[in-house]
Amino acid sequence: MRSEFELIRRHFTHPAPGTRLPVGDDCALMSPSPGQELAVSTDVLVAERHFFGNTDPYRLGRKSAAVNLSDAAAMGARPRWATLGITLSPAQDEPWVEAFARGFHEELQVHGTDWVGGDTTAGPVAMIAVTILAEVPPGQALLRSGAQPGDDIWVSGTPGDAGLGLKLLKENLAMSEEDRRHFLDRLETPTPRVMLGLALRGLAHAAIDISDGLLADLGHILDASGTGACLEFARIPLSKAMVRQQSLADWPLLVLSGGDDYELCFTAAPASASAIQRAAASADVPVARIGKVTDSSDRILYDGDGWPMVMAWQGFDHFRNV
Amino acid sequence: MRSEFELIRRHFTHPAPGTRLPVGDDCALMSPSPGQELAVSTDVLVAERHFFGNTDPYRLGRKSAAVNLSDAAAMGARPRWATLGITLSPAQDEPWVEAFARGFHEELQVHGTDWVGGDTTAGPVAMIAVTILAEVPPGQALLRSGAQPGDDIWVSGTPGDAGLGLKLLKENLAMSEEDRRHFLDRLETPTPRVMLGLALRGLAHAAIDISDGLLADLGHILDASGTGACLEFARIPLSKAMVRQQSLADWPLLVLSGGDDYELCFTAAPASASAIQRAAASADVPVARIGKVTDSSDRILYDGDGWPMVMAWQGFDHFRNV
Repeated sequence: MRSEFELIRRHFTHPAPGTRLPVGDDCALMSPSPGQELAVSTDVLVAERHFFGNTDPYRLGRKSAAVNLSDAAAMGARPRWATLGITLSPAQDEPWVEAFARGFHEELQVHGTDWVGGDTTAGPVAMIAVTILAEVPPGQALLRSGAQPGDDIWVSGTPGDAGLGLKLLKENLAMSEEDRRHFLDRLETPTPRVMLGLALRGLAHAAIDISDGLLADLGHILDASGTGACLEFARIPLSKAMVRQQSLADWPLLVLSGGDDYELCFTAAPASASAIQRAAASADVPVARIGKVTDSSDRILYDGDGWPMVMAWQGFDHFRNV
Repeated sequence: MRSEFELIRRHFTHPAPGTRLPVGDDCALMSPSPGQELAVSTDVLVAERHFFGNTDPYRLGRKSAAVNLSDAAAMGARPRWATLGITLSPAQDEPWVEAFARGFHEELQVHGTDWVGGDTTAGPVAMIAVTILAEVPPGQALLRSGAQPGDDIWVSGTPGDAGLGLKLLKENLAMSEEDRRHFLDRLETPTPRVMLGLALRGLAHAAIDISDGLLADLGHILDASGTGACLEFARIPLSKAMVRQQSLADWPLLVLSGGDDYELCFTAAPASASAIQRAAASADVPVARIGKVTDSSDRILYDGDGWPMVMAWQGFDHFRNV
């Protein structure tokens, strides 16, 4: 394996300027900032389950970094370092590996994160395991468990776009090339909301990133906080491209339960509303208030006319049947 | 996926007493010790490549932790936290997962390391990606690049036993049940030399763990340090069980190039020899001097009679043809 992957390993040995050692010793060495807590997350992506095998490798590299950076963002933590464990199947030739590594590296760099090491091996199917290490001042991490009754519920960006992008890959839908591009970009190159997460420290009571779908991930906050929620569907921001797809019967389902958006859903005291708008503006991300945390255990969703919508508060694994 | 793995996830959500958060938020949160450097390593194990699919899951769990703890040991770093990204195929039923998780957890606990999080997903083949986070005082990490001409070359334990264990799984060899058990234990439940690594801080000039084979891994030290070596085969310690297998034509090859031992190979000044013996005794691991670092680029190996042995200084991937 060593010999057959000598060339490929080259692409996984970028020097990491923030570390004392290049990739290649038994461990990478790094210097944590004094007095910070460390926030660590690991995500695994498997071909034909979390991504299509024919996904553009550069974009897959970016997304592999982005979904992990998003976990740091959801904690209000500053991502510093990442490791990559990757299993390559025979379908991943050297150009694939080069493009993947470039995308992975670039996405990390955008967010000031160093790629410090990892492991490359061969297997029957491509698998990508990323671990992100981030820093946050003690006590300032945004947890899922902090939502309080009376909090506003906020969401960044326009949920559902990535879900529609996935639908596009599975079905033949008629739409403009511009809209098609928008949805596919949102699916394949999501933007981790790292700056927003940092700006929400001290403001948000609870936060999560939307990987499973808005309702499902908000549900994780409600579960962890022991609270209920009352949402207004009409307040959820839609992209212009999504507005143009409203002939699709399931567009509301995509907005509410489509996964892979990597937007932030968070709660905060109503008195913080204008500070949150300023924080979001500083992070250059639109945010919207979409409901309220309640002290009941009910989870209620109103449509635009004030009628309750019947909707399962759970995500569905779009890729399950890929 | 979430639903089908709800039961299985249970086994991957042990509370981690050293962290502020149980597994389950976007990230795990932990408090690094003040003033320490962080040593981080990721290893990936793939079924039928790095382990046989029918390996006992409890022992596989232990080994999955051990091979990563060994990377920390080779740096002289104290392992603190680990994450596990695991892909489960249909062959991994719930009892398998329970046993794997128990082994993984127990091996970490032996070495004072907390399991802080990870990701569980489904795929066509079992894959295990572990990231270990360890701590070491600044400047005290044992690097591969520190070997100096004149250094003694040391090795812990009895190299080759794991390689013979693998041979046992592939070939039908006649030996006592006691010897068979010894070799299989060394292959399937290696002991990461964490205490020895810590005891070697300030004594060893360079260190590595033996995963690819003694000559290959010593070669990594020599490459990184720009030095040569002169080894005496007769000085390499052999287990009693190995001594009893000397009717096998390839036993010297296993000692020199068998992988998966997870012993430490290190270099140190001759003046440190008695301190190293004391350090090894304190860590309860036998160590032996097997040669010298030289200032040439030659890598020479003498047999017991003082004749050079012709031997490729590279590991071979035993599992390649599993």
